[in-house]
Amino acid sequence: MKCTCSKKDLNDALNAVVKAVAVKPSTPVLAGIYLRAADDTLELQATNFSISIIAKIPANVEVEGAIVVAGGYFTNIVGKLGGEIVTLTNEDDAATVTLRSEAASFDLLSMDAEDFPRINKEDATHSFRIPKDALKNLIARTVFACSKDESRPVFTGCLIDIAGTAITFAATNTSRIAIARDQLFDELESLQFIVHAATLRNLLGMLYKSSDNVVSVDFYGTGVAFTFDNIFMSSRIIDGTFPPYDKVIPASCATTAEVDVAELRVAIERMQIIAQETEYKTVLFKFTQDGLEISANSYNVGKSIEHVDANVNGDDLEISFNFSYLLDALKVFDTKTIGFGMNQPLMPAKIQGTDDESFIYIITPLRTQ
Amino acid sequence: MKCTCSKKDLNDALNAVVKAVAVKPSTPVLAGIYLRAADDTLELQATNFSISIIAKIPANVEVEGAIVVAGGYFTNIVGKLGGEIVTLTNEDDAATVTLRSEAASFDLLSMDAEDFPRINKEDATHSFRIPKDALKNLIARTVFACSKDESRPVFTGCLIDIAGTAITFAATNTSRIAIARDQLFDELESLQFIVHAATLRNLLGMLYKSSDNVVSVDFYGTGVAFTFDNIFMSSRIIDGTFPPYDKVIPASCATTAEVDVAELRVAIERMQIIAQETEYKTVLFKFTQDGLEISANSYNVGKSIEHVDANVNGDDLEISFNFSYLLDALKVFDTKTIGFGMNQPLMPAKIQGTDDESFIYIITPLRTQ
Repeated sequence: MKCTCSKKDLNDALNAVVKAVAVKPSTPVLAGIYLRAADDTLELQATNFSISIIAKIPANVEVEGAIVVAGGYFTNIVGKLGGEIVTLTNEDDAATVTLRSEAASFDLLSMDAEDFPRINKEDATHSFRIPKDALKNLIARTVFACSKDESRPVFTGCLIDIAGTAITFAATNTSRIAIARDQLFDELESLQFIVHAATLRNLLGMLYKSSDNVVSVDFYGTGVAFTFDNIFMSSRIIDGTFPPYDKVIPASCATTAEVDVAELRVAIERMQIIAQETEYKTVLFKFTQDGLEISANSYNVGKSIEHVDANVNGDDLEISFNFSYLLDALKVFDTKTIGFGMNQPLMPAKIQGTDDESFIYIITPLRTQ
Repeated sequence: MKCTCSKKDLNDALNAVVKAVAVKPSTPVLAGIYLRAADDTLELQATNFSISIIAKIPANVEVEGAIVVAGGYFTNIVGKLGGEIVTLTNEDDAATVTLRSEAASFDLLSMDAEDFPRINKEDATHSFRIPKDALKNLIARTVFACSKDESRPVFTGCLIDIAGTAITFAATNTSRIAIARDQLFDELESLQFIVHAATLRNLLGMLYKSSDNVVSVDFYGTGVAFTFDNIFMSSRIIDGTFPPYDKVIPASCATTAEVDVAELRVAIERMQIIAQETEYKTVLFKFTQDGLEISANSYNVGKSIEHVDANVNGDDLEISFNFSYLLDALKVFDTKTIGFGMNQPLMPAKIQGTDDESFIYIITPLRTQ
């Protein structure tokens, strides 16, 4: 193999595919990135069997060939190279690949391309296209709400629920649910599947760097693939049934309150210094006709109380929340004000942007001490 | 106690004194910051017996008094407050202090001021003034070279060596020595003492935020105090004798080489990905009439070789260095080029800025494999 390519292209492609390199590989080759030079293209592949990523970049190919390099080292080294053009050379039967850029030359141990589990593109049963910004928003507004408890796999991912042109992402750790909605370019029959949070976080990172405005999504029964720019990313889906998320949205609310997102967020960020010292990370909300009073009380540190302007309607209510579940959501609203909708101190509360149905957050209150 | 002060003043003062709050306090009060309101001033004190810091800020004092607050919590909370003015209130005999700013109110547990070990300012035997920028430079160019091995205390600090108006800082971990020189405002008789690296790092952090251009230094036998802006910082000195650092500077060199600092630094930063996988973090330098060739070789990753332009005089030489000891020094030179002066592969090498005697770095080579 011998080829030259742009250092920036190679660096970007490596930083995309390296996300699929196994952290604790079961065989050494899975710690590698597969490189194949052919047809004016350098193709990079990595897979940990859960996520697989392929990237292709233009290359001047003098000698075709394929090789596997140590993913982490190779990516770090390319990131440090000077110059704009990189040359990759691998002599037949040599166990090293040579990387050259300006005055720097690296001979890196390589592995046999034959041993690498090449990534198959499966035939899709369902395909649709979605605006990149819509997909970024859907992920960012839900993925934080997933559970980290691997003993209940369905909660470690986001449900993707499609009906017609409507797409909904839902995620929960059973104490709060985030529900985000948007529209597809295409109309699709009903389709539901669950994608692991780690896959979506990696995808989100790549979408931030993407120049394409549209992402193609292909569902193939056991997995899903996302294609944009020069990148193909596939992931196994999580087996299991996601609970009916719509059922927990309160139909009516005895107490409603409208507050400024930024004002509430800084107040809670101040109070978290006290609240994080409490057993359940508790902040108490008192809604009255005078507005909202929030407070936190730790036996070890002290207590804090603060008034937040709020337009409250309905019954007065005292209700307690985990402050970090609130802060998670306050970071992803894009309206200036949000509405709280509540019934009883221990019944789920709803938060959504004023005049905005695109994001709904349901949070189970804590017992008020 | 009741007083009001600027939030910014209080925040800055807390962030200075909190550096002296004990991380693992032997008594609870040592985790505290002592606050005393009197004579239009709020005084803050913290000490861990090794370092002591006092800061004073203007305050509108309604009721004089003193209290001790939990250092970490109090500093974090003030940092999160909105508004420009803070009110501090402590009722007689109350075990809490109340902190108010805009809509936020915190009642924080406090401790008895009588229990706090108040900081004494000792009478100085030697006093001098030094430009702030000179002191910053002297610290930054030497403190990184200190040892972290507490079993040999003299190497965990910088020697401060004064003779006439000349001041020299020297630090070593026995594998490399950093020697930085500058001038005082005042002429002083001969004086040597060793200050712990942690003290100097804290001082450096405060000097970056300081507005004064001059620092007053008072030496009092068992310790040293630095005064600038509204801050007084004292520290115990380290007992022991620092080895004669001047003796290790090679008097003459069989091989000299001049190289560009930035070019050498990026080359080593690239190569460190290989070198850090070697047993002794080794980079091999080959000086010849053609310039400098550096290389690293790891059995697990591969090898790297790179040419660096160098003006070499004298004998050809192959010599190996620990890459991180080199990088530490390359970050603190302020000349465009530096000169290497060497004799044999295992004899100490000297590095200093071209036409600049203010910083000399001596490094013991590694055995070339």
